[in-house]
Amino acid sequence: MKNVYLIGVGLIGGSFAIDIKKKHPTAKIHGISRKDGTLEKALEIGIIDEKATLEDLKNAEVVIIAIPVDATVELLPKILDKISDNTLVIDAGSTKEAICKVVSNHERRRNFLACHPIAGTENSGPTAAISNLYKGKTNIICEVEKTTFKLQEKALALFTDLGMRIRYMDPVAHDKHIAYVSHLSHISSFMLGKTVIEKEKNERDIFDMAGSGFASTVRLAKSSPAMWTPIFKQNKANVIETLEEYINNLQQFKELMQQDNFHEIYNEMENTNYIKQILNGIQ
Amino acid sequence: MKNVYLIGVGLIGGSFAIDIKKKHPTAKIHGISRKDGTLEKALEIGIIDEKATLEDLKNAEVVIIAIPVDATVELLPKILDKISDNTLVIDAGSTKEAICKVVSNHERRRNFLACHPIAGTENSGPTAAISNLYKGKTNIICEVEKTTFKLQEKALALFTDLGMRIRYMDPVAHDKHIAYVSHLSHISSFMLGKTVIEKEKNERDIFDMAGSGFASTVRLAKSSPAMWTPIFKQNKANVIETLEEYINNLQQFKELMQQDNFHEIYNEMENTNYIKQILNGIQ
Repeated sequence: MKNVYLIGVGLIGGSFAIDIKKKHPTAKIHGISRKDGTLEKALEIGIIDEKATLEDLKNAEVVIIAIPVDATVELLPKILDKISDNTLVIDAGSTKEAICKVVSNHERRRNFLACHPIAGTENSGPTAAISNLYKGKTNIICEVEKTTFKLQEKALALFTDLGMRIRYMDPVAHDKHIAYVSHLSHISSFMLGKTVIEKEKNERDIFDMAGSGFASTVRLAKSSPAMWTPIFKQNKANVIETLEEYINNLQQFKELMQQDNFHEIYNEMENTNYIKQILNGIQ
Repeated sequence: MKNVYLIGVGLIGGSFAIDIKKKHPTAKIHGISRKDGTLEKALEIGIIDEKATLEDLKNAEVVIIAIPVDATVELLPKILDKISDNTLVIDAGSTKEAICKVVSNHERRRNFLACHPIAGTENSGPTAAISNLYKGKTNIICEVEKTTFKLQEKALALFTDLGMRIRYMDPVAHDKHIAYVSHLSHISSFMLGKTVIEKEKNERDIFDMAGSGFASTVRLAKSSPAMWTPIFKQNKANVIETLEEYINNLQQFKELMQQDNFHEIYNEMENTNYIKQILNGIQ
C-alpha cells in the first residue's frame, strides 16, 4: 500500500491512518479536509504526511472517506469522477442506504466498497485518533457484489491487517438494525444528559452524586452533533420507529410504577437481564 | 476495628469487607444473610470469617447493612434493638428518606449513620465484591447530627481508610437528586435493553452490529432486579417525575425529527455536550 488518501482526518480516518502506517511504514498518507485547521493539526501530530485536494485523487491507490454521512452523499460521486481505474474507495458511514443509492448508477460504482466499521469513541477530531481502534471490531460491508473482485480483495486485506471481523448485509437491513443497536442508544443518552442538565444545572455539587453508572449511560451524549445530525436525518424513518418503541416501553414502565405493580417491574428488569448474554459477545 | 458484622455479603458488603481486612488484618468479619448459600459462598471465597445471626449483634463494634432497601427498612429497627451501646450501624442504601424515617424515634437512633456510598458495578453477589470499590468515590451521609459524635468519628475514620469523599445532605434532597443522577439512568438503560431485545431477539447475528457505545449505554440493564425494585418503590414519586421529564424530552426529539427540524436537533445535541464538563468531574 503506497498512496492512501483520507477524506476526513478525524477519529475514524485518523485511526485508519495510524494502523495503516504501522503495517505499511512506507505508505504515504494524504489528507483532505474542508477545514484547513484540521488538516494542519493532523499534519502536526503525524496522522497525515501531506495535505492534498480532490484533484490529487487520480494518484490514489486507496481512498478512505470518513466524514459526516451527508457530506459523503454529496462528495462520493465527485470522488468517483476523479479517481483512476484501479483506485479503491471505501467509506465508514453509519448509514448505508443513501450512500449506496447515490452511486448506484455511477460508472465507477465498482471501485467503491460501502463499509461501516462498528468502532469509535465519543471523541472526535484528529487528536481523538488512536491505534487499534478497529482491532476485533465488526466491519459491515454492504452490496459487496457491486465492487470489483480485485478491489474487494484489497479492502479485505486492509481490514484483516487492522484485525477486523467482516459481516455482509444489504443497506436497507443495515440501516434498520443499526437504528436499534446504535442510533437509538445515542438518542437515549443525549436525552438522559439533557434531562439531568436541565434539572440540575443550577444545583451545586449535585454531580458529586453521580457515579460510574451515570457516566456510562450518558457517555454517548458527548458525541459530535456534526456527525450525528446527518445520521438521524438519513435514517429518519427507522430511528423514529425505534424511538416510538422506546418511549412506549418507558411509558409502560412509568404506568406500572403508578399502579404500584412492582411485581411486574421486577419481571421487566429480570427479563432484560438477558442483555448480559448479548453483551458478553460484544465486550 | 475488631468485630465487623455484615448484613448482606454481596457486592457492596463484600467490597467493604475486603478493604477493611486490608487495613485491619486482625478484624474479624461476621456475615449475616437470609440465604445460607450466599453465606457459604462468602465464607468459601474469604469475604467473611464466620457466619453469624442477628442475635450475635450485641458483640458488634460495627454493623454494615448492605441489603435491598426494603429489607433495610424492615430490619434496621430490629438491628438497633439488638446492638450494644457502643455499636456503630451504617447502611448503604440508594434511598434515604424511608430508612431515616423508620428509626427516627428509635431509642438507639444515635447509633445509626445513614449512608449512601456512590459506588457499585452492575454485578451482584459475593463473587462480585472487589477491592478499592470505594476509593475516590463519594459517600453521602444523611442526618449526621442525629448520630452520636463518637460514632460519627468512627465511621469517618473507616470511610477515610477506604479513600472516600464525604458529602452531607438531608434525606429528602438526597432522594430527589439521586433519582436524576442514578435511578433514571437505570430505567433508561433497562428500557433500552428491552426495546432492542424485543426487536432483535430472533435476528441472528444482529448483535454483531452492536459496538462499545451500545454496551456502555445498556450496561446498567444487567443490574439486579432484587436490589432495584425496592429502590423504585421507595423513591416512586421522584422517579416518576424524572421519567416524565425524560419521556417528554424524547418525545420532543422525535417531533423535531418528524418536522425535519434537524437544525434544532443539532442544537439539542450541542447543548447536551455540556455533559463533558460534568463527566470530567466523575471519571
